[in-house]
Amino acid sequence: MAAARDTGVDGLLVTHLPDVRYLCGFTGSYAALVLAGGRPVLFTDGRYTAQAKAEAQGTRVVIAKKPAVIAACEWIEAAGVRRCGFDAAHTTVAALETMRKAVSTKVRRGLFVAAGSLVARLREVKDAEEIERMRRGALMGCGLFDHMLTYLEPGLTEVAVAAELEHAARLAGAEAMSFETIVASGERSALPHGRATTAKLPRRGFVTLDFGVMLDGYCSDMTRTVHLGKAMDGEREVYDFVLEAQEAAVAAVAPGVTAGEVDEAARSVLRRAGLDKYFSHSTGHGVGLEIHEGPRIATKQTQVLEQGMVITIEPGVYMPGRFGLRIEDMVLVTGTSGEILTPSVKAWIEL
Amino acid sequence: MAAARDTGVDGLLVTHLPDVRYLCGFTGSYAALVLAGGRPVLFTDGRYTAQAKAEAQGTRVVIAKKPAVIAACEWIEAAGVRRCGFDAAHTTVAALETMRKAVSTKVRRGLFVAAGSLVARLREVKDAEEIERMRRGALMGCGLFDHMLTYLEPGLTEVAVAAELEHAARLAGAEAMSFETIVASGERSALPHGRATTAKLPRRGFVTLDFGVMLDGYCSDMTRTVHLGKAMDGEREVYDFVLEAQEAAVAAVAPGVTAGEVDEAARSVLRRAGLDKYFSHSTGHGVGLEIHEGPRIATKQTQVLEQGMVITIEPGVYMPGRFGLRIEDMVLVTGTSGEILTPSVKAWIEL
Repeated sequence: MAAARDTGVDGLLVTHLPDVRYLCGFTGSYAALVLAGGRPVLFTDGRYTAQAKAEAQGTRVVIAKKPAVIAACEWIEAAGVRRCGFDAAHTTVAALETMRKAVSTKVRRGLFVAAGSLVARLREVKDAEEIERMRRGALMGCGLFDHMLTYLEPGLTEVAVAAELEHAARLAGAEAMSFETIVASGERSALPHGRATTAKLPRRGFVTLDFGVMLDGYCSDMTRTVHLGKAMDGEREVYDFVLEAQEAAVAAVAPGVTAGEVDEAARSVLRRAGLDKYFSHSTGHGVGLEIHEGPRIATKQTQVLEQGMVITIEPGVYMPGRFGLRIEDMVLVTGTSGEILTPSVKAWIEL
Repeated sequence: MAAARDTGVDGLLVTHLPDVRYLCGFTGSYAALVLAGGRPVLFTDGRYTAQAKAEAQGTRVVIAKKPAVIAACEWIEAAGVRRCGFDAAHTTVAALETMRKAVSTKVRRGLFVAAGSLVARLREVKDAEEIERMRRGALMGCGLFDHMLTYLEPGLTEVAVAAELEHAARLAGAEAMSFETIVASGERSALPHGRATTAKLPRRGFVTLDFGVMLDGYCSDMTRTVHLGKAMDGEREVYDFVLEAQEAAVAAVAPGVTAGEVDEAARSVLRRAGLDKYFSHSTGHGVGLEIHEGPRIATKQTQVLEQGMVITIEPGVYMPGRFGLRIEDMVLVTGTSGEILTPSVKAWIEL
């Protein structure tokens, strides 16, 4: 609530589920959490009676018959909250209308105040326990990549590769994949977001694997690009430039540096090589309970990196009709620099 | 646009990705689509240049340097649209603010109008091609269930069961699972949304499998509950009541019937058996490009079922600390009744 009070509100309605989980530990798929001094109050429904009480320690649990957000708003009015913050980035226009209709006309005007993404901001900096969980998830990812090196061969479909990777992830203890596994091979490696298809891995060409696991609720995220057969015209050179760009950005990570400076560290390497026009996305993003969190590591971003942030560094080059590749690590911002959480080999690999 | 014009708007800004896909075929993860008479205009970014042109046939594609929604709003103003509808249920308060700031102050007030979920409403009724895709996805699910019957045995972890199911799904050609696979065994079967954990399947007790695949962009969804070992006290009786409730609701499906009547058909069976207090969720939901779509099959819902809708029918009973079970089919509303798309056996299975 301290962060909330700075914005002039005396209550906070939290409905974005990763924020609810972060604040009170509840992992169910239906919840509204109210912070207004005293114990937080969690509203959910009858499906989650046992789970809410077990998970949301220190939180008052209300099993509502009405929709949770309506029950929460009625409680907020009854508790005498005068200005209740909500997260404009995760509250739909329709939900705000529902919130307003749930309270009496005399308080309706002015009760709910767009308070920005206060919880998202808190979540950007991870504590020791979160970092420990994320280390384990990141290392699980590295283990899966090692396994895939023994599995990849020409003729396998991209889908079969994704299947093997995801099966191994489950057996290693992943709760789920943290996003749809990307397997992009041959000419398809030029698609920055190529889902796995029934295309077959080529005898000669790149295979990009971009994947992550969920472990204890936290996401991992890494990308490696390997080459089947001997390199063809220009492939090795482009790979080396992307790797140089990736390592330059990792080296630029430190508390006090801006996100834009990290992005520029990668982009300037590719610019010198004449490849920046093929680097069509940002350099990275924060990661945690969600696969995409703040900070954005992108051109001109002025946000300053802080100790405890976990970000991805993932420059890539995509040459339509030819080939593409991307190399991505998860990086923890330490007290002095950036620590790679995904230490899998990044040198050129030819299988 | 016909549906939109009825609501008094002369343009529509569509940003919810399943709606974008439905309207123009583009499957990328970043887009804004404008309908304002003439060809639809799709705004996306440089990652999707090739893909947008290939997929969004009949649509003008604009690769924007600015955020797609800002470029779309500038286009809307320049095109002279006077009242542009947006979907209040899928537009955040922050996004609406961004939309308003993207246009000049002289049109800002009144240009954007909450137009309800027009596209979601259209999507509820599937056409022949969509139904064909959904049939194939549903049958793939049935094949996976058959496979799992040969795999399940006491001592396997729930996670290993999920891993096997998801691996088989990938090899069968699924693009992805349509939601996080639920494997809930023994006492955990009493959790309506029990994710797969490292708990081991019991020698005697229920195992609930609730899963679905994505095929050609469409979701399947089915649940079966089987029993390991011989039934214990009350289990068989409860199973039979849930099955009776499920079959009663399927039998109630027909065009012209309300969603609430279908829900009541299931709920009344369980009420007569004294089990309705353990049926803590709604009877079902529409399914399509998203796993949860309209209509909601829930108590007192007055929405009328129409030919071409595809819904789930999934009553369950959950007795905390004892056991639980659920049985779910996908059901197509035909011209006269409901047709089950997931014809896997529902009789008591003892493994």
